[in-house]
Amino acid sequence: MDGVLADVYHRFLDLHETESGKRIVLQNIIGLKEAEAFPNLLNWVNTPGFFRGMPVMSDSQRVLKELNDKYEVIVTSMATEFPVSLTDKQLWLEEHYPYISWKQVVFCGRKEIIKGDLMIDDHFKNLDNFIGETLLFTQPHNMNVTETRHRRVESWIEIENLLLK
Amino acid sequence: MDGVLADVYHRFLDLHETESGKRIVLQNIIGLKEAEAFPNLLNWVNTPGFFRGMPVMSDSQRVLKELNDKYEVIVTSMATEFPVSLTDKQLWLEEHYPYISWKQVVFCGRKEIIKGDLMIDDHFKNLDNFIGETLLFTQPHNMNVTETRHRRVESWIEIENLLLK
Repeated sequence: MDGVLADVYHRFLDLHETESGKRIVLQNIIGLKEAEAFPNLLNWVNTPGFFRGMPVMSDSQRVLKELNDKYEVIVTSMATEFPVSLTDKQLWLEEHYPYISWKQVVFCGRKEIIKGDLMIDDHFKNLDNFIGETLLFTQPHNMNVTETRHRRVESWIEIENLLLK
Repeated sequence: MDGVLADVYHRFLDLHETESGKRIVLQNIIGLKEAEAFPNLLNWVNTPGFFRGMPVMSDSQRVLKELNDKYEVIVTSMATEFPVSLTDKQLWLEEHYPYISWKQVVFCGRKEIIKGDLMIDDHFKNLDNFIGETLLFTQPHNMNVTETRHRRVESWIEIENLLLK
């Protein structure tokens, strides 16, 4: 969800600028973990309502709908670490991806529990333990890694080309 | 979670009595689905804070702690149908079962997504599709079913005797 459907960096950069008056240059945080790049991250994610304001990733609403028409889609998020985020995340999904039923959603603490044929994620920790095909969604925190054990995708257009054409 | 860790009937019976002035006799709702037995159920579960007041099932705190010391335990709940319950359920777990880390929690819409060796649940729909051993936890809605495809347990003491002795 975060970093694949939800454009979290977009929101984090805006919030950091609002709070500090300074705009972070994306180039300067490449390779940093989100919490390293944004010192206030833990305060933000523990604030009720925070996740409701997340922008959606470009083209994700349309492409996920097409995937959902063709495949059995599950949306999963490592969200139990932040209890207040749970309700907000489900409501956010229902608002922006209304074709994803509550039956297709999994909030968890470890994605090793998930079985499926293909996982799209921005974190190696989630993809490395997945039994099935994997797509690494490019985000600033993983941009500088050049390893090749997961196929990298840069956008939902690339996912569309790979899985729907 | 509900009907195994959370003693939902205890709370539902109390609430029904508070609202209607009448106490439901447990014998009269055996075999009914929860929503059939308690007409206000949907209002209750969509009320913020409702799940925070759930009583714990007898002996579940002690026995789950012992299971957690010996096995890899995951607590899962079909909770995404009720977005407002999600945050409350995680906070309730942290309050009553503090040894269960957020990493061990899965909120989902369908338990077919869960892989594991043994599942304890009160609903056939969850146990029937599970690949692994199953224990059916007795609750009023399943009391009248005499089928034998799942081993039935009546209490956490019985779980303790089966899995820890």
